[in-house]
Amino acid sequence: VWIGDDAAVLGRVGGPLVCTTDCTVAGVHGDPRVIGLADFGWRALARAVSDVAAMGARCDGAVVAVAGPPDTDLATLYDGIVAAAAGHGCPVVGGDLSGAAQLVVVVTVAGHVDAPPGPVLRSGARAGDALFVTGPLGGAAAGLRWLSAGHDPPTGSDMARAAAAHRHPWARLDEGDAARRAGASAMIDVSDGLLLDLSRLADASGVGFVLDTVPVAGAATLEDALGGGEDYELVVAASDVGALCAAFAADGLRSPARIGTCVENVATRTLAGEPTEPVGWRHRWD
Amino acid sequence: VWIGDDAAVLGRVGGPLVCTTDCTVAGVHGDPRVIGLADFGWRALARAVSDVAAMGARCDGAVVAVAGPPDTDLATLYDGIVAAAAGHGCPVVGGDLSGAAQLVVVVTVAGHVDAPPGPVLRSGARAGDALFVTGPLGGAAAGLRWLSAGHDPPTGSDMARAAAAHRHPWARLDEGDAARRAGASAMIDVSDGLLLDLSRLADASGVGFVLDTVPVAGAATLEDALGGGEDYELVVAASDVGALCAAFAADGLRSPARIGTCVENVATRTLAGEPTEPVGWRHRWD
Repeated sequence: VWIGDDAAVLGRVGGPLVCTTDCTVAGVHGDPRVIGLADFGWRALARAVSDVAAMGARCDGAVVAVAGPPDTDLATLYDGIVAAAAGHGCPVVGGDLSGAAQLVVVVTVAGHVDAPPGPVLRSGARAGDALFVTGPLGGAAAGLRWLSAGHDPPTGSDMARAAAAHRHPWARLDEGDAARRAGASAMIDVSDGLLLDLSRLADASGVGFVLDTVPVAGAATLEDALGGGEDYELVVAASDVGALCAAFAADGLRSPARIGTCVENVATRTLAGEPTEPVGWRHRWD
Repeated sequence: VWIGDDAAVLGRVGGPLVCTTDCTVAGVHGDPRVIGLADFGWRALARAVSDVAAMGARCDGAVVAVAGPPDTDLATLYDGIVAAAAGHGCPVVGGDLSGAAQLVVVVTVAGHVDAPPGPVLRSGARAGDALFVTGPLGGAAAGLRWLSAGHDPPTGSDMARAAAAHRHPWARLDEGDAARRAGASAMIDVSDGLLLDLSRLADASGVGFVLDTVPVAGAATLEDALGGGEDYELVVAASDVGALCAAFAADGLRSPARIGTCVENVATRTLAGEPTEPVGWRHRWD
């Protein structure tokens, strides 16, 4: 598998190895002045792990390269990276450090799938497959809006949960693994926005999609949910809806939310009957 | 194996996996204005592969993260990365791209050792082991000096070879593999300077060293050879000198050059009877 999926797949004795790398740049993918360096580090690790989750794989370990200004508080940055590594069961096993004008954290995660079926690619969805997401969307975008405005949301509120979704995203490793074992045909994580990431899955699979509804996080707007990104929930395509839901239930996971269906016409991309645009965060050079 | 060796070792079904990550920052680890973006890309790939070579491992593949200014000529940068990947038999299997103020290329390489013995660490050298390098040193430093002065060395000259050593370093994968199979006790690549890198090996192994002589590249000074770095030759410690030389000969490799011996007293670090300083390129935050 060449560049373009969430992670690379390398042939290996003992099962395929997956490997993914993710740049997190201060001011581009998170603002340490808003969330602090520890949460910036957490996000850098979780973003990379999410790409492994989107293959239905498990993490073997991460290597972390940091380039940044000499006055960077590395101890605090690493605290966040290591906390996320512990939380996700993905040990940091190596790293590199260099001076640079701007803080750049590159996390590379190696992972594997220990039993068939193999890693779930973006490209396997077929017309008729059902589409799911693993949780409500838009919380991270809403949380960032609050945090950027300097608000301190009340404990336990929807806004506090949204702020946490931005600060401390969780990669959906268990959900990805369950979906793979249940025979999911395609999968991608919602890093840049549902409509943009789903369009990538549809493009890679050569299908269109018809969305009925999208679950919106408590404090978020529908616009946040469709284009906000950074929620790191998974979009799953599956032909056997019963097997998917049963696998999630057997593992004690939140039920995946059905959002729509894949269709044969690649140009059909609708929500509630209306055409959609692939809105979301477009990386430079995309 | 935790942070601190050339590459991380992850336990894997089918043999240990090694994984290494390396930052190459424009203006810190190479100047694209001097050598061009293609050679900057070559160096970024070769530096990371060299860490795999220093474990005695083979490459499975690389993932490349690039952060840089929007006007970066990515096609030229990738040309160099892909040429080095082809030259080293290390396919680029994935990547990530982001905007940033300064060009940062992070190459992460996964590799493996396909038969015992396992990866060669820095920490296995014992008093009495012989020390070798896989080739003459200092060429890259001398070449950089010429290139930075704007010289265009005559084809076939020592200086031309030195310039090539800086522009197009080769990781010593075959030498590392041969040394591992021959039972090398410790290994490190000369990335920052012989005395500095050898000191790291000695520190990790709890030994001192007595150097007799160091092979100096054609256009280089002894100072270049001792502290210049970036030659990416390997330093090898081995108790069985005959087995090491036989393995190199059987594989058609240049004979390793004996430079000295490991000794019990950790504080003994001499060259031709004189004390040495661990000179070389010190990374920020080292």
